[in-house]
Amino acid sequence: MKIQNIDVSSYPNSEKIYVKGTRPGVNVAMRKIHQYPTVKIEDGKRVEYPNEDIVVYDTSGPYTDPAIEKDINKGLPRIREQWVEERDDTEVLPDITSDYGRMRRDDKSLDGIRFPIQHKPRKAKDGKRVTQMHYARKGIITPEMEYVAIRENLDNEARGIKTHITPEFVRDEIAAGRAIIAANINHPEAEPMIIGKAFSVKLNTNIGNSALSSGIEEEIAKAVWSCYWGGDTLMDLSTGDHIHETREWIIRNCPVPMGTVPIYQALEKVNGDVKKLTWEIYRDTLIEQCEQGVDYFTIHAGVLKEHAQLVKERLTGCVSRGGSIMTQWCVLHDQESFLYTHFDEICEILNKYDVAVSLGDGMRPGSTHDANDRAQFLELEVLGELTKRAWKHDVQVLVEGPGHVPMHKIRENMEKQADVCSEAPFYTLGPLTTDIAPAYDHITSAIGAAIISNLGTAMICYVTPKEHLSLPTLEDVREGVITYKIAAHAADLAKGFPGANVRDDALSKARYDFRWKDQFNLSLDPEKAKRFYLESRRDAPDADDKFCTMCGPNFCAMRISQNIESECKD
Amino acid sequence: MKIQNIDVSSYPNSEKIYVKGTRPGVNVAMRKIHQYPTVKIEDGKRVEYPNEDIVVYDTSGPYTDPAIEKDINKGLPRIREQWVEERDDTEVLPDITSDYGRMRRDDKSLDGIRFPIQHKPRKAKDGKRVTQMHYARKGIITPEMEYVAIRENLDNEARGIKTHITPEFVRDEIAAGRAIIAANINHPEAEPMIIGKAFSVKLNTNIGNSALSSGIEEEIAKAVWSCYWGGDTLMDLSTGDHIHETREWIIRNCPVPMGTVPIYQALEKVNGDVKKLTWEIYRDTLIEQCEQGVDYFTIHAGVLKEHAQLVKERLTGCVSRGGSIMTQWCVLHDQESFLYTHFDEICEILNKYDVAVSLGDGMRPGSTHDANDRAQFLELEVLGELTKRAWKHDVQVLVEGPGHVPMHKIRENMEKQADVCSEAPFYTLGPLTTDIAPAYDHITSAIGAAIISNLGTAMICYVTPKEHLSLPTLEDVREGVITYKIAAHAADLAKGFPGANVRDDALSKARYDFRWKDQFNLSLDPEKAKRFYLESRRDAPDADDKFCTMCGPNFCAMRISQNIESECKD
Repeated sequence: MKIQNIDVSSYPNSEKIYVKGTRPGVNVAMRKIHQYPTVKIEDGKRVEYPNEDIVVYDTSGPYTDPAIEKDINKGLPRIREQWVEERDDTEVLPDITSDYGRMRRDDKSLDGIRFPIQHKPRKAKDGKRVTQMHYARKGIITPEMEYVAIRENLDNEARGIKTHITPEFVRDEIAAGRAIIAANINHPEAEPMIIGKAFSVKLNTNIGNSALSSGIEEEIAKAVWSCYWGGDTLMDLSTGDHIHETREWIIRNCPVPMGTVPIYQALEKVNGDVKKLTWEIYRDTLIEQCEQGVDYFTIHAGVLKEHAQLVKERLTGCVSRGGSIMTQWCVLHDQESFLYTHFDEICEILNKYDVAVSLGDGMRPGSTHDANDRAQFLELEVLGELTKRAWKHDVQVLVEGPGHVPMHKIRENMEKQADVCSEAPFYTLGPLTTDIAPAYDHITSAIGAAIISNLGTAMICYVTPKEHLSLPTLEDVREGVITYKIAAHAADLAKGFPGANVRDDALSKARYDFRWKDQFNLSLDPEKAKRFYLESRRDAPDADDKFCTMCGPNFCAMRISQNIESECKD
Repeated sequence: MKIQNIDVSSYPNSEKIYVKGTRPGVNVAMRKIHQYPTVKIEDGKRVEYPNEDIVVYDTSGPYTDPAIEKDINKGLPRIREQWVEERDDTEVLPDITSDYGRMRRDDKSLDGIRFPIQHKPRKAKDGKRVTQMHYARKGIITPEMEYVAIRENLDNEARGIKTHITPEFVRDEIAAGRAIIAANINHPEAEPMIIGKAFSVKLNTNIGNSALSSGIEEEIAKAVWSCYWGGDTLMDLSTGDHIHETREWIIRNCPVPMGTVPIYQALEKVNGDVKKLTWEIYRDTLIEQCEQGVDYFTIHAGVLKEHAQLVKERLTGCVSRGGSIMTQWCVLHDQESFLYTHFDEICEILNKYDVAVSLGDGMRPGSTHDANDRAQFLELEVLGELTKRAWKHDVQVLVEGPGHVPMHKIRENMEKQADVCSEAPFYTLGPLTTDIAPAYDHITSAIGAAIISNLGTAMICYVTPKEHLSLPTLEDVREGVITYKIAAHAADLAKGFPGANVRDDALSKARYDFRWKDQFNLSLDPEKAKRFYLESRRDAPDADDKFCTMCGPNFCAMRISQNIESECKD
């Protein structure tokens, strides 16, 4: 297989760099953007003033490193394998444990679409827990923790920017449950990253096919594309054919943590018949995915039988797929949700692989009308209880949040979650701040995402322009990622995250200097910025004008402003 | 001339309605969106439940009324002419007063591009002031005030929704300076609208050619297009050729108030040589535009000579065109700005035509780095002084605001403006909440616009994806307008503006009912929503599915949720 038709090999005028840590193998990838000099005419002579390189957070993985051979059929380098081995608390299993996993492996008809290399799964030794939270609580600083501390700081030290982020701080935040490093021991290809309110705001992207749409190659392309543009994590929400095989391809080629919603696949296994879902099928699905390397599971264990009645009071009922499935299961069986009753058992599976749990908000509001209602907040109480239960098993926790929330009701969401869930990282979908703009819901939700991130949400789940309407194309993924990078970065700036303003200031200076190329290269989407500029300047492909089309040469405020500066010199 | 290639004649499944006031000619245009019934299967039978019509605010003017003949060469119906006449405080002038206006009129070489009908200008009789503020202070409720009260309320009364907005309330807000109705007596084609924090948040769009770009036909198309999608006011920022003639075409065909920045044209008149600008040229330009029918002028009278030095302390200097022109003029002449020294005279011109002044923020920050700095806030103090001076002349005032402001510095802008400018309506450009996303600045700024509107900003000036890069195309105008409708509406929802949630709730119900067509028709951009949906459902052009492509038929949460509701019925 190949990556379809997309170029993710480089960014303009940029260089892949690695910052070494103290531990073997801790080489933290970053991107360094070179700048052109500022040119001034002084006393009739052209004088060049150099501009410094700008180092930015890089989620693109080995794809942008020319020194690493890329072959999607081999997968990415397994950079964490050595660290996991060295801890000596895991073992390589002789065979896949999950019944379903073995069945798929032995099905010859799937050979044509199977990832070519079979890595044997790894699991904690008997009696061991292998989660980052477990180590942190024991006072251990893992290489993963050192990695993310370096990654969050970029070149702050060289710039003399003060930071609160040290490996010790990372450890303490993880130990307290306020941050997580989602890093399954079976996904050693992923570059460690941290999610927590004391760190830069992260964004998740969703990909995945449905019964009506896209195939494996397209999903791999979307995954790599999402990382290229800045996605920090990735959820595969596939519900169509070949979920198992698609997932394997994505994980082996994915440089960021990957999450799933296991109930989707469990439901596929019973042909969509909710009544036939059982704990046993779900359990086998968890193990199947733990052994493939999924880094976090969305589990809607907070949806209880008693919530079913509350759905009827709403304008838009239950809009969470997992939530609606479990609610229906409870009603059909007149029993409590097996996700809730078996939650401790689930945690004991997860801590053998270090899979984080992302507590799904099955009762999230599907309209601004239903925001902050009883169904939503009753479930949140349950999520608070489950957070503490998961922590007892040393399982790392994210808590998922809404959804559709008008601006004045956003703060209550954040404060209640922090209170009820003891500051476990909040991970929200938007929220959308109005319902009246399908086709623009990346924007209705970016407003909410920026606000809630500023209040303390640790990760925001992107929304594309196709939300509510259709599955996103590659272009929609890009639009969604950049929109959410904007929301996340706006929040970092507002929170005063160390060094967050460096890129803004550099780009603004480039703009004021008329260094058009630097303005493009420093931007979140250099290709589009340049394309928009050139649309109206086909005669100036080098982008060296001392003005732009908007105002033309005589009305350029920045040009006049520079004249004023020289005129004021005397 | 013709409107280029755009269809602004109707919205899907919508009807133009008019709500009559008590005064003759007060017929307030609104749009009524019809809905399909909700279909349920009960006891094996198909039962239809009707859904109510939804009435929405309509800025599209006569273009969407099939009963009105549209001819761009004749201009729109002059709906306010009778009201102005009835007040009997104005007179029709025998000739154009402005020298430049007469010169252009007499220039035969312009006959080919001239608007075909010449309306004689109207002006206040000697000793009279004809502004809405003047009437309001006298306790008079004008037809314009009744019009906007009806317009803001839509069908709230029929719905039993309480409202604070009555004609008396409108009058009192205008008398206090907290709201304005920008309505030049020479632009009787415009439908009255109100800008103030007690009313729905409005959005302004900018159009206009530059030396490098578009012509008259394109600008008319942009103006009409902007109104069609929801622009409440329109600024013509042209700086290229034929400013005078372009403006005439736009005003005669523009159903919303139109603003300009007169210094741009004044500078054209001296061939771009800032040094040659004089008060006399500027004054003639004001009169020229007052007599054409411009409804509000951006005047950068707050930029003082002493501010020039402050520009040097900034990362991005002065990024306001008007501000930089005036700063340079002050430096070149070593004199105080003629806009400041002649401000009372300006006001005495404006109150003869009821042109509102929009106090320009020449020192607005052009980067997040420069936000809330000394230059910006010193100028704001001057704007506060000018607000009070304008009010002495009964001139209606808007105060313009930034610009580029990170989220945590937005509140200070709003609070300081309200304090210093005695709650005169704030009119902000975004603000952009980060500088790193050229090509996406409609989004970086929509975040700031939604936040600042929620805090009390009365009108937000749109930003298109081309900001900083190029002039917007028609598609960019549409994208910018819809993005800002989202920001404005999100703020209305958050402020609890009476009836704001009606459209959200109707669309959400349509979504939950799988009434796809209603979901599209109720949205801000029905065409795009439908197009996105159909992209992946080419087999179902009628959009009647009980699911969408995102999840496919088996995983649709809303379908399952509806099943739960019926299962829970027993």
